[in-house]
Amino acid sequence: MSGVDHDPLSFGAPVSHHVLENGLEVVIIPDHRSPVATHMVWYRNGSADDPQGQSGIAHFLEHLMFKGTEKHPQGAFSDLVTELGGEENAFTSMDYTAYYQRVAKEHLGRMMELESDRMQGLVLEDAVVLPERDVVLEERRMRTDSDPAAQLGESLAAALFAHHPYGTPIIGWMHEIEGLGREEALAYYRRFYTPDNAILVVAGDVEVEEVLALAQQTYGQIKASGHKPVRKRPQEPVLRGQKRITLADAKVEQPSWQRSYLVPSLRTAEKGVSEAIEVLMQVLAGGQSGYLHRKLVVEQQKAVAVGGWYHATTCDQTRLLVYAVPSEGVSLEAIEKAMEDTLADFAREGLDDKTLTRAKTRLIADAFYAQDSQTAMARMFGSALAIGAQVQEVLDWPAAIDAVTAEQVLAALKWLDHSKSVSGFLLKDEAA
Amino acid sequence: MSGVDHDPLSFGAPVSHHVLENGLEVVIIPDHRSPVATHMVWYRNGSADDPQGQSGIAHFLEHLMFKGTEKHPQGAFSDLVTELGGEENAFTSMDYTAYYQRVAKEHLGRMMELESDRMQGLVLEDAVVLPERDVVLEERRMRTDSDPAAQLGESLAAALFAHHPYGTPIIGWMHEIEGLGREEALAYYRRFYTPDNAILVVAGDVEVEEVLALAQQTYGQIKASGHKPVRKRPQEPVLRGQKRITLADAKVEQPSWQRSYLVPSLRTAEKGVSEAIEVLMQVLAGGQSGYLHRKLVVEQQKAVAVGGWYHATTCDQTRLLVYAVPSEGVSLEAIEKAMEDTLADFAREGLDDKTLTRAKTRLIADAFYAQDSQTAMARMFGSALAIGAQVQEVLDWPAAIDAVTAEQVLAALKWLDHSKSVSGFLLKDEAA
Repeated sequence: MSGVDHDPLSFGAPVSHHVLENGLEVVIIPDHRSPVATHMVWYRNGSADDPQGQSGIAHFLEHLMFKGTEKHPQGAFSDLVTELGGEENAFTSMDYTAYYQRVAKEHLGRMMELESDRMQGLVLEDAVVLPERDVVLEERRMRTDSDPAAQLGESLAAALFAHHPYGTPIIGWMHEIEGLGREEALAYYRRFYTPDNAILVVAGDVEVEEVLALAQQTYGQIKASGHKPVRKRPQEPVLRGQKRITLADAKVEQPSWQRSYLVPSLRTAEKGVSEAIEVLMQVLAGGQSGYLHRKLVVEQQKAVAVGGWYHATTCDQTRLLVYAVPSEGVSLEAIEKAMEDTLADFAREGLDDKTLTRAKTRLIADAFYAQDSQTAMARMFGSALAIGAQVQEVLDWPAAIDAVTAEQVLAALKWLDHSKSVSGFLLKDEAA
Repeated sequence: MSGVDHDPLSFGAPVSHHVLENGLEVVIIPDHRSPVATHMVWYRNGSADDPQGQSGIAHFLEHLMFKGTEKHPQGAFSDLVTELGGEENAFTSMDYTAYYQRVAKEHLGRMMELESDRMQGLVLEDAVVLPERDVVLEERRMRTDSDPAAQLGESLAAALFAHHPYGTPIIGWMHEIEGLGREEALAYYRRFYTPDNAILVVAGDVEVEEVLALAQQTYGQIKASGHKPVRKRPQEPVLRGQKRITLADAKVEQPSWQRSYLVPSLRTAEKGVSEAIEVLMQVLAGGQSGYLHRKLVVEQQKAVAVGGWYHATTCDQTRLLVYAVPSEGVSLEAIEKAMEDTLADFAREGLDDKTLTRAKTRLIADAFYAQDSQTAMARMFGSALAIGAQVQEVLDWPAAIDAVTAEQVLAALKWLDHSKSVSGFLLKDEAA
């Protein structure tokens, strides 16, 4: 007997999936609660697809996509969204790049017109490319190169993914961003910004036929590239040895410890394994009621904060992380030992039904709550399809979580394997 | 005033350098001491040029080059060398692949005939490619996967070169070797095994005109590829944090500590810097008279062995390594601290003239001694040209070493920079 409702996610009408003749995938998510529409285009290329030596180009191109086309000069698209009282955004992940607008539903066609226009019509001149590169370089300087925690994060990721491109930061390495110019950007744009490499997601107060007709009039007019990109990334070798990276910097206010593990993702795992890891992380690190918080913060008072996360939605092997911020007077070595002991205690104690059910209920509830936000809902489907999943898999995910057993959760502890981990120590440099 | 003779390397006649019309470089090193000739062909592609996801292919192709051509079936070339009382070998490094034979001088032409034949005429069928791949996989299993020190070495290199392909082992990652087949091998062979990517080195009792005539009759008949490979490898980013990797294994007999640093190579360094690092390493780790041995083994008796090396002849940034095997009862942490203290002592004490001169004399003498071995001499020029140096630079190297000052040696200590290092701890796993 299950304590949770495991019906699939339910929408006002079925979520539908279509493919235009040019290869563009279309997902339509009916949501008639208010007269708005969310329009997103997802490209199946993220930083992990950056050509060797051109790290950062996926993210750089995301910036350049706002530089205007022949039909719509720089600023025209964004100005229109603002004028219509809408909102827009764009983001680059390791596996995809996406663009979206949210507007009153009657303006959906206009959005599709402008977004499809910049799928092929982008104008890139040195006069806009080079200053934008300076913007990105400055973004990197600000966010990473002046932040010890971010620097340690880069070193840890590079050590965890020694061979796979997930070890390269999305924004790119400074010296490689500096080498990106108009030519590289154009070559990249022509290779990846094509209908056969994209997914259109429309959520909102719309009818399927109407969206498909608009899609055909806009995106449908673009020819298939005929060279749909194939993802073929170098995979991680088996590397032995326990890795530790220590960074001491005068700017560090609060020392902290973390450990990242190489683990299967939703795409690479055998059936049920990724879901079991999700439940495990909910049990261990699900906020104030999580096992790690209860033991290390409340009972032992060795840490002022603990936590963890699992990044399930990636194309390839992914990362699970646990961290702790030690209490005053507790060393990083001591908190590391306490974390290891606590995880061993958890494995020994096992998992009771009540805790398991609470964790699953919470995960499933979060997925249902996402339906409250049209953007979150569109993102859920867009990101899943961008990494190669199907609409049905998204719909079935709550049931798959509900099916996870205590045995599977405990078995998932094996992925917290030291030999596939990197530990990070962030310290205040007292000497400096 | 210098204490050492700094004449350039001197040979019976000038070392000469030529380029055939098809782009093949030819280096001829006269050596009339005995009636033999060493014949080498160097290709400017090593493991660091392996296509992404195909690590190990340079080394795999070195194996396949012995599989025969249309004219000379498998075994014919090697059998001939044996029959003529000669010797042969081949090797793959990170930056090049080379093949050589050493025979009585009258057989030089025959060697050139057979070697030039396999520059383009290799026959690769699944029936030979696939079993040879099993040989390589077994080589990897034997040498690396069953040896904890080799495994730690791979982890350390992968962490030191997080982005640059020097972090990938020459033999390749197991899962990528498994993916190499006939098609990949042929594509690689066609791309790199061309006269415009090769250097012919002939050392021995030969005349320049005679060698050039033979080269023209053999290698000269091959057309230039028209697509001379360009080396464009991703360079290391600046990564902060002190990295440590610990490997404990029941098979470890003797615990050891090591630290690798990312340093400039002969090709990437400013003038004089690589030479200063060479002298520094000679002073610190030049055998029994080296500073590290004297302090840590003889005086303090904390280690039973210490040492280090600097790999100067690479295309890109390279590696400097120091290591120590602690005495009974001394922990790896203690020997690490002792090594750090000893290096700090050295920096404080400075370098007297006598020690400096002795170190330089030794390095220069080693270069001169190489002339005693025809193969070593040919290798010296071949490897230098393969990484992009000129004949004259090889000849001038002793003088460049002689010009190094004590100030430059002490300044070179800055390259032993923790923030660009990875430390390795190899331990016996007592629990296992």
